[in-house]
Amino acid sequence: MHIHGGDIYTYQNMLDFSANINPLGLPASVVQAAAKAAAESAVYPDPMCRELKAALADYWQVPAKNIVCGNGAADIIFQLALAALPKRALLIAPGFHEYEQALRAVGCEIEYFYLTEEDGFCLTEKYLSALHDGLDMLFICNPNNPTGLAVPRELLLAVLEKCRSLNIRMVVDECFNEFLDAPQDYTLLPELAANPHLFILKAFTKIYAMPGLRLGYGFCASAGLLAQMSAVCQPWSVSVPAQAAGVAALKEQEYVEKARALVSAERARLLTGLSVLGCQTYGSMANYIFFKSRPGLAEACREHQLLLRDCSNYVSLCEGYYRCAVKMPQENDRLLAVLSQVLAD
Amino acid sequence: MHIHGGDIYTYQNMLDFSANINPLGLPASVVQAAAKAAAESAVYPDPMCRELKAALADYWQVPAKNIVCGNGAADIIFQLALAALPKRALLIAPGFHEYEQALRAVGCEIEYFYLTEEDGFCLTEKYLSALHDGLDMLFICNPNNPTGLAVPRELLLAVLEKCRSLNIRMVVDECFNEFLDAPQDYTLLPELAANPHLFILKAFTKIYAMPGLRLGYGFCASAGLLAQMSAVCQPWSVSVPAQAAGVAALKEQEYVEKARALVSAERARLLTGLSVLGCQTYGSMANYIFFKSRPGLAEACREHQLLLRDCSNYVSLCEGYYRCAVKMPQENDRLLAVLSQVLAD
Repeated sequence: MHIHGGDIYTYQNMLDFSANINPLGLPASVVQAAAKAAAESAVYPDPMCRELKAALADYWQVPAKNIVCGNGAADIIFQLALAALPKRALLIAPGFHEYEQALRAVGCEIEYFYLTEEDGFCLTEKYLSALHDGLDMLFICNPNNPTGLAVPRELLLAVLEKCRSLNIRMVVDECFNEFLDAPQDYTLLPELAANPHLFILKAFTKIYAMPGLRLGYGFCASAGLLAQMSAVCQPWSVSVPAQAAGVAALKEQEYVEKARALVSAERARLLTGLSVLGCQTYGSMANYIFFKSRPGLAEACREHQLLLRDCSNYVSLCEGYYRCAVKMPQENDRLLAVLSQVLAD
Repeated sequence: MHIHGGDIYTYQNMLDFSANINPLGLPASVVQAAAKAAAESAVYPDPMCRELKAALADYWQVPAKNIVCGNGAADIIFQLALAALPKRALLIAPGFHEYEQALRAVGCEIEYFYLTEEDGFCLTEKYLSALHDGLDMLFICNPNNPTGLAVPRELLLAVLEKCRSLNIRMVVDECFNEFLDAPQDYTLLPELAANPHLFILKAFTKIYAMPGLRLGYGFCASAGLLAQMSAVCQPWSVSVPAQAAGVAALKEQEYVEKARALVSAERARLLTGLSVLGCQTYGSMANYIFFKSRPGLAEACREHQLLLRDCSNYVSLCEGYYRCAVKMPQENDRLLAVLSQVLAD
């Protein structure tokens, strides 16, 4: 099994910087909704997620028929792969492991576009020349995980257009979009209706700090693809508590804005703090920071009851690359203090 | 989308006899555990479900390494199909729709063994002659859904042996086993260790009345199959509330025994009541009853705010076949009263 961040079950009672979740934690209203729904779980969930889709449609101004919900964004990724059965797909390395896992599960060949240190791990226009008509699907995570860098809108639009002409399904993972300072400048949501080859992946997981409840969703204007996803997926993939939690979460607009402001300020502080400690950072725009330091840092931090995401198991990365979450101020102080001590050794 | 029972979102405020769930409802301890876990869901679930698997291992006396957990039994069925990629499988008709859906999702050809009215919808030794070396997989639901009839142990053992010699993976769905008067006489669990081609499917859904929380599991002695299932499935398919609910549920032994006794008594009463009303029943042994009556009964019952499972969309069945749950005494009284009125019209 691929080792992800957030493995607090193997490493217990640690301050977890390895998972990249909203530092404000679960909104009280979401906990209440999920707990109430738990008591009402002697019935099957609504297979069509009607109330949740209506709330999402209202929130994002997207027709409910263009929405699919799943057991976390990871579930949607597997549904997508099984529904579309791509023969050859293009992934960006380093990137989220589940794209590759889901594609391999359906026997898809994978090509990689490698982000380079020289480019500061930014996606550049070079990416356009990696697109060719032998590809059926590509995934772009925006902002990318683990690098935290967002792809400029102009480049995304060029990719979208090239995908249309080459008949490539373009999957854009916007699970971290809301943590950007200017989310609206990066989302492809305005392009959805006119581009049935576009699939936008979203989750409640990160922005509402509810990874344990499992709720992801996606937007797509292709009725055929959504029907095929429904055909290759169980009807009850989204639990009663998750559906209720999602409806409650969408009302938490102040919480999202507070999180964005907090993350923005703390990200800047951590970026500076990491640089001061001699770590190489790359200008993260998200709620996590990708950096390079000496090998063995994650193990050393664990001795101080602190978990970093060791990024050495990402395709194209090696030892010495790490990702840390942006957490609450005191927690971030603790991270910098531990790193200071560990790096001084 | 295939229409299942339990569609209380389309038909609201009805007495639901169309889903076959423990009539005692969710145990209070399970609600408490799930609600508490909802508040603790700002972390990812344990991908390895360690605490839950340990509890299951202890409860069933099966090694934890032989257990797989999923987002409901339906999730396990899809994992199984995608991991094993059978080319040709044998299903029993009528039977649970998700076997077929999951197999078709991976392009598997399906053969049917048809239960017949002449055999009272019992699985007989004729089934053995339907097994051949072109099959990769078969599913047997025991007791079968929707018929409610359990397969005698001797026949199951003969199937198991023939599957071994023909190299067929045998999946036995025991999700309703605990509702039988003598569960231990029907389970294949004692055969698990010596038969790596056997997969036993289980769920918390039915016996603990928690379909909304989504928790299923499976037993298999083939480490290779379980590893492959893990490879084709997201790591976080089982939510934090579901894992906690499962651990709590396994302590509810009295509840299970009370449910079994209640279902046994009420099943007998309903079987008699249905016969008196002129419905053809088939000796159900489960927490639901399969019966034949006139076409249009489900629609007529809906006018009395009561949902039956119309079985006409099961492979090999036609209009006039129904399934009703065995519920609490007063609810069952209501069912008989409504049917009496409707059938008198």
